[in-house]
Amino acid sequence: MTSIDPKDIPTAKLHAYLLSAVAPRPIAFASTIDAEGNPNLSPFSFFNVFSANPPILVFSPARRVRDNTTKHTLENIIRTKEAVINVVDHAIVQQMSLSSTEYPEGVNEFEKAGLTMLASEKVRPFRVAESPVQFECKVNDIIHLGEERGAGNLVICEVVKFHMHENILSEDGNIDQNKLDLVARAGGSYYSRAKNGFFEIPKPLSTLGIGVDNIPAAIRNSKILTGNDLGMLGNVDKLPSEVEVKDFIADSSEAKAILNAEDVDKIHQRAQQFLDKKDVASAWKLLLAKHN
Amino acid sequence: MTSIDPKDIPTAKLHAYLLSAVAPRPIAFASTIDAEGNPNLSPFSFFNVFSANPPILVFSPARRVRDNTTKHTLENIIRTKEAVINVVDHAIVQQMSLSSTEYPEGVNEFEKAGLTMLASEKVRPFRVAESPVQFECKVNDIIHLGEERGAGNLVICEVVKFHMHENILSEDGNIDQNKLDLVARAGGSYYSRAKNGFFEIPKPLSTLGIGVDNIPAAIRNSKILTGNDLGMLGNVDKLPSEVEVKDFIADSSEAKAILNAEDVDKIHQRAQQFLDKKDVASAWKLLLAKHN
Repeated sequence: MTSIDPKDIPTAKLHAYLLSAVAPRPIAFASTIDAEGNPNLSPFSFFNVFSANPPILVFSPARRVRDNTTKHTLENIIRTKEAVINVVDHAIVQQMSLSSTEYPEGVNEFEKAGLTMLASEKVRPFRVAESPVQFECKVNDIIHLGEERGAGNLVICEVVKFHMHENILSEDGNIDQNKLDLVARAGGSYYSRAKNGFFEIPKPLSTLGIGVDNIPAAIRNSKILTGNDLGMLGNVDKLPSEVEVKDFIADSSEAKAILNAEDVDKIHQRAQQFLDKKDVASAWKLLLAKHN
Repeated sequence: MTSIDPKDIPTAKLHAYLLSAVAPRPIAFASTIDAEGNPNLSPFSFFNVFSANPPILVFSPARRVRDNTTKHTLENIIRTKEAVINVVDHAIVQQMSLSSTEYPEGVNEFEKAGLTMLASEKVRPFRVAESPVQFECKVNDIIHLGEERGAGNLVICEVVKFHMHENILSEDGNIDQNKLDLVARAGGSYYSRAKNGFFEIPKPLSTLGIGVDNIPAAIRNSKILTGNDLGMLGNVDKLPSEVEVKDFIADSSEAKAILNAEDVDKIHQRAQQFLDKKDVASAWKLLLAKHN
């Protein structure tokens, strides 16, 4: 293990560790206007949703690590207390990246990035027409986390209206996450396209899973079964009965053969195959036929 | 476009939209202790890094949408002002999910999930030994965003020490993000394994890209080139010279043949192939041979 006190390393180094370790980060493509109404558009990955009621999004235009300057987005928000947060899908990721160029004040990043300004309904900053979900926000508060290079500024945004492209919605009106096709930020120059990594885990049982601590020791201490395997085995509310185990074996010549060979590793490997197919019940029955 | 005022829909519905639209979300696997020292462990995806100096992580244990109850993690933090935020890699995702079961107060989720408690150095809550990066944190502030069902609570955590498994580090001591293998949360029961979606985009030019607005109209309004293609073309600080364009064509019988056919779509398709291979210079030279 490598252990580090943040005070012992330069901010740029610490910054790099944080950006790699806390990831993938959703991207707020934030549209603001200055006091004269000039539009600004810039992406921020110090961002997330934090509350549904009130609906609160928070992002942080941090002070630059390089020279402690602040971003136009922050200056605009301090003056106008409004923003539109647009999400970033794969189709606009190159334009989003281009918009993060540090153009001088007054340059319109919508134009530089070739994106379309769309009037909002409840706030003055423009929406990004190409973004599949656009959140019009009032800024309730700005919390300055420090004054040094790299200091963040929490912009507490309340969603007052939001807009979704029809083509990302499923028939029941919910968002189809594969159609939405979001990208997120990781460390260095890495991005992650969410849908390429999608997998599902059913919500934990409201009836309370037995937990890994209640898995018999011979199974829990397996050389074969991984932590993920044990996690799945622990998320059942009760074990199969002796009758269920007997019936399972009686019906499966394959299971009988594996058990007769008396090779614990082979039995655990077969149970693991059941788990890989999300067949937790068969995994348990095979394991209990050996270990009960 | 579907437009919604958050006040017009039930909190549960709004919650579902927010969780699908703001994603993938990094996961804080938060370890706390109660006043008696009993450990608690629970995952939160209303989480991100927000500042490097001071190093600030923020997560939100929100009030439950279902019944407006609060989570043990929040109650513990209000009393003890300390937490360890552990990151979640693919190897422990099933155990993390199991730990989010709503076990009664006093139940140790480390035991239920089969994870190992590791003493911290500067705070009292335990680390998750299996987590590849563990942040020991002092809680500087807790900001309550509301009192109703679904209201978030911003827990402002300052990192006072952090620990990394050696096997996620590259030879230069930085984090190898492929070895780290983080997972993140999306809507419904979806998770995303970051590395399966990894791609790289070079940082925008510090010399300032010309921008999409300076791309000749015949290219900018192409039926073939996408927004991502234009974003890449706009991220060059100057266009190739006439001599460079001529030399490129002179050296390429293939380019000559495409240009002689005088099919604009075919020329743009070939330019797009260059862009797909990140060869922006060749794309520009071919396009300018036609459009300059």
